[in-house]
Amino acid sequence: MLTIGVDIGGTKIAAGVVDEDGRLLATATFPTDPTDPRAIELAVITAVAQLREGREIAGVGVAAAGYISPRRDGVVFAPNIAWRDYPLRDRLSAGIDLPIVIENDANAAGWAEFRFGSGRHVENMVMLTVGTGLGGAIVADGRLLRGAFGAAGEIGHMEMVPRGHYCGCGHEGCWEMYASGRALARAARNAAVAYPDRAHALVEAAGGPGQKIKGTHVTEAAMAGDPLAVELLASLGTWLGAGISDLAAIVDPELAVVGGGVVGAGELLMGPTRESFRRNLTARGFRGELRIEPAELGNEAGMVGAADLARH
Amino acid sequence: MLTIGVDIGGTKIAAGVVDEDGRLLATATFPTDPTDPRAIELAVITAVAQLREGREIAGVGVAAAGYISPRRDGVVFAPNIAWRDYPLRDRLSAGIDLPIVIENDANAAGWAEFRFGSGRHVENMVMLTVGTGLGGAIVADGRLLRGAFGAAGEIGHMEMVPRGHYCGCGHEGCWEMYASGRALARAARNAAVAYPDRAHALVEAAGGPGQKIKGTHVTEAAMAGDPLAVELLASLGTWLGAGISDLAAIVDPELAVVGGGVVGAGELLMGPTRESFRRNLTARGFRGELRIEPAELGNEAGMVGAADLARH
Amino acid sequence: MLTIGVDIGGTKIAAGVVDEDGRLLATATFPTDPTDPRAIELAVITAVAQLREGREIAGVGVAAAGYISPRRDGVVFAPNIAWRDYPLRDRLSAGIDLPIVIENDANAAGWAEFRFGSGRHVENMVMLTVGTGLGGAIVADGRLLRGAFGAAGEIGHMEMVPRGHYCGCGHEGCWEMYASGRALARAARNAAVAYPDRAHALVEAAGGPGQKIKGTHVTEAAMAGDPLAVELLASLGTWLGAGISDLAAIVDPELAVVGGGVVGAGELLMGPTRESFRRNLTARGFRGELRIEPAELGNEAGMVGAADLARH
Amino acid sequence: MLTIGVDIGGTKIAAGVVDEDGRLLATATFPTDPTDPRAIELAVITAVAQLREGREIAGVGVAAAGYISPRRDGVVFAPNIAWRDYPLRDRLSAGIDLPIVIENDANAAGWAEFRFGSGRHVENMVMLTVGTGLGGAIVADGRLLRGAFGAAGEIGHMEMVPRGHYCGCGHEGCWEMYASGRALARAARNAAVAYPDRAHALVEAAGGPGQKIKGTHVTEAAMAGDPLAVELLASLGTWLGAGISDLAAIVDPELAVVGGGVVGAGELLMGPTRESFRRNLTARGFRGELRIEPAELGNEAGMVGAADLARH
Repeated sequence: MLTIGVDIGGTKIAAGVVDEDGRLLATATFPTDPTDPRAIELAVITAVAQLREGREIAGVGVAAAGYISPRRDGVVFAPNIAWRDYPLRDRLSAGIDLPIVIENDANAAGWAEFRFGSGRHVENMVMLTVGTGLGGAIVADGRLLRGAFGAAGEIGHMEMVPRGHYCGCGHEGCWEMYASGRALARAARNAAVAYPDRAHALVEAAGGPGQKIKGTHVTEAAMAGDPLAVELLASLGTWLGAGISDLAAIVDPELAVVGGGVVGAGELLMGPTRESFRRNLTARGFRGELRIEPAELGNEAGMVGAADLARH
Repeated sequence: MLTIGVDIGGTKIAAGVVDEDGRLLATATFPTDPTDPRAIELAVITAVAQLREGREIAGVGVAAAGYISPRRDGVVFAPNIAWRDYPLRDRLSAGIDLPIVIENDANAAGWAEFRFGSGRHVENMVMLTVGTGLGGAIVADGRLLRGAFGAAGEIGHMEMVPRGHYCGCGHEGCWEMYASGRALARAARNAAVAYPDRAHALVEAAGGPGQKIKGTHVTEAAMAGDPLAVELLASLGTWLGAGISDLAAIVDPELAVVGGGVVGAGELLMGPTRESFRRNLTARGFRGELRIEPAELGNEAGMVGAADLARH
Repeated sequence: MLTIGVDIGGTKIAAGVVDEDGRLLATATFPTDPTDPRAIELAVITAVAQLREGREIAGVGVAAAGYISPRRDGVVFAPNIAWRDYPLRDRLSAGIDLPIVIENDANAAGWAEFRFGSGRHVENMVMLTVGTGLGGAIVADGRLLRGAFGAAGEIGHMEMVPRGHYCGCGHEGCWEMYASGRALARAARNAAVAYPDRAHALVEAAGGPGQKIKGTHVTEAAMAGDPLAVELLASLGTWLGAGISDLAAIVDPELAVVGGGVVGAGELLMGPTRESFRRNLTARGFRGELRIEPAELGNEAGMVGAADLARH
Repeated sequence: MLTIGVDIGGTKIAAGVVDEDGRLLATATFPTDPTDPRAIELAVITAVAQLREGREIAGVGVAAAGYISPRRDGVVFAPNIAWRDYPLRDRLSAGIDLPIVIENDANAAGWAEFRFGSGRHVENMVMLTVGTGLGGAIVADGRLLRGAFGAAGEIGHMEMVPRGHYCGCGHEGCWEMYASGRALARAARNAAVAYPDRAHALVEAAGGPGQKIKGTHVTEAAMAGDPLAVELLASLGTWLGAGISDLAAIVDPELAVVGGGVVGAGELLMGPTRESFRRNLTARGFRGELRIEPAELGNEAGMVGAADLARH
């Protein structure tokens, strides 16, 4: 049985045909304009029509950033697209005569890792997607945890530091202000001001100080051995590990999967993450201890997970 | 179908026959010595035998403070009783020829509230038991969340303040260091040092400063209108609400039930808890919002919940 | 004996003739370009020449934002003007044949309050200037505390919150990130996101959300009774008071003077400031307790203080 | 000209004759009972009488832990001795016909380092005495900073962590809760709970866990190379350095002198202290940078400093 997964991003949609083992059989991509919901819908409808040709498809899963309605039929609020209380499923159903489910993109990616990636041998896991922000997904007893209002897994907004850095959500000290690509870039920019003598490599790699320094510059400089960049990446890992220990106290998974581009830095990130987790885990030694592993699936995880959720 | 629930406390065991509607039909209580595991077992066996007389019992549920094994057959670690990796079920089975399940006491109490108390109309809830420490239970999609290692719901050890107050667990800043009976007493003792002029009523109620001040003195003084006590209780509520907003971000329940003696203070506690929750909830207005309610069942919740878990 | 004080700001210089009682007898103002140090010098020289006409002047004091050299002859670093290790006194001496001293602008303003304003009856005081940032000055035993490197009184960069808000200085959690006009505006902008239902008055006063909200909008809305604005101003006061209690532990002044435009809000600011100070003061009741008062001199304090420092 | 310095400790008094170069010419020690003020006075009077024999003495300086009155004639509050608003100078004058000054013991020790120890070549310094708590002294422009109420230099009660560890003073997060012998011992005890696998050497050295672990065990284990102890000591240094950077922002000394038994650990403490200071110093590179050095004088610093203060 085949299904189609669609990942609606800020500037494009990516769709793919996925089989029961999570394999992508065909894909289609269309650029989109985040301010034009109607055009996004048309792109999704066109992609699905194109991919269905010559195949029997059982359903469509759609992944998008934002708060998804509890019934998985719409988007309550999206940070990047002009949707507010938007009946996305009905709009798509006008052009797609298949069952459709909507899911948060981090949830979809986490589900893909659970079904086909790093988590395929466990029943309880959390996934952390380190992108611009910090997304999450929780699988408990083999089921995706959605919560009463469809908002479970918004782990990036757990408060880590009272009166800490302001988050775009209006609150202070959210986890994603310390463990995300944005946090990495911000820490690097500030380090360039506070310790100019240590930031030469970073500033050079970025072509200048200030806003020019991006998270990828830090990752690359760290992999090239720059001590400040290594330290900044370790700090990100330390915050990841600290938050994972909180998740262990609350939902007690067997595995935490870390995804996102920064995972490319390998042990430079994963080492400090594990070390920090071990230091912060309550009752360590008196309880089982989760493993922390990098994600196995790449950018296609959201599409694959959404397709698989359409099957269940 | 009847089952028996047993709550093993630090100084006594309480057992009861519970029907399918959560009604207690009969109870038995025995004093116990926390340093003598064998005597505790005998007390449980005796209580069950006594309560079975003339009744058909389908199983026994046992609630105890501590880390329970993932298979619910033993106690990995208990804070108050001399158990370490203790095969409690096998020990009890030697004298009880019924199916037995072991469960963490806060989980059992939370399950009772979910089935028969404040949570009986919802599918997703968390329970917070404010005792000496802060216990928790999570129900997701109608199922008790146990986690991979049986340690889910240890919410009291979520870190709230980096480098904050030391917890008995060896870590700093655990939630229960700010939202528990122990925290309330400690805050009161320190307030008596820092603001002696405001602490007269509290010190008088306690019969002296320092260790004499207990959490119950604060609750009573607050209910009598003492401004400092009202403030201390509100601070406890503020920390409760802040942590509940974190739980909302992670597991997104429809309801948070607050239990424990301090709930007797009513709105003096619940008001600041709700207010703090609302202030800290991420994406408020763009998502459904949980309710916060006091527990309906009293001290018997652990026993009733354990009995009901033996049924499922 | 008359002296001249000059206050070099980001967009203008203000100069004045000051007598021994701190009275301003005449003033002159010139607009300036912060990127053109030479033009700034010419403006100062012209102003002094103009004000000297027909008067006997004993010296010139120059106040500027930034790190002043220990010998008070130059500017090590200025945040707003293109000066780095700049020999300002020598440059000015080329056109002014009078003794010249350079002083940090917050120090100069604090000295003016000490000599002629709120602090005229004490020997030990601190001044906090709440502007865009948070400047400070310390007077101990009747002497302006300059420190070994001319950097004493940079109180705004005392760390208040580990891992807190980033400061322009590259560090996290500096006091001025919580107690300054910039902090007030930032808190208001974020409150408008986090609690949109409470921020109507503020957003309306500002003509929109986001960057449109300035500190002055908060002050005005608070004075008009808006509850959220009152709360934001109280929060600023709370942070002011907390830091003043730290200063009391370190330098133990008799008086803390609070200056800056926000002081116009009166008790809405001063009340929470005093309350927070009292709550945070260590060993309260076992030691003398400083008073907290608003500044008496206005924007001319820097000019008057610089003039008086040229006399000593 | 000779003077006598007396250091009143919790269980003994130590007195000594000191010359103008800070040399101790003779000493006398008497055990005392902290609950018996009259016996303490007699011990001081006896010691002075004994040391005066055959010498011309110009005055007596007395150092004691606690809040000293602004006029240096009494003790407002002492943590270890039964003094409250106690006219110590008048009581001693009944038996000593010499000028007497009372000074806080940390101030006296700091003054000794300033005059004869690590600070003898500077005009602006701070001293940090790491004992059970964290004492401080500030010398500005060659003068001991006493403050308006005699309480300057109580640096250990600067708040470092909002809602952090409770201090004996009733407040939360005081610096001495993170940078003192008590903090070191507490951190070690908690590490033994949180990381039992890493704490073997420490627990063995102490002869057991819990209260048996003292700060000296950590220092010794660190010097013997134990990784956990090294880390705990480094953490103490990190907090010392962070606070010193705050002092640099406020009083801007040229030198910070660190005293107390823990300084015996040498670079294991001083290295992390300096490193942390450099990381936290605001505007580093745009301002002069203080040095951090160990104290040169030992336990006699209080006595020597008090004697010298009696001379000025």
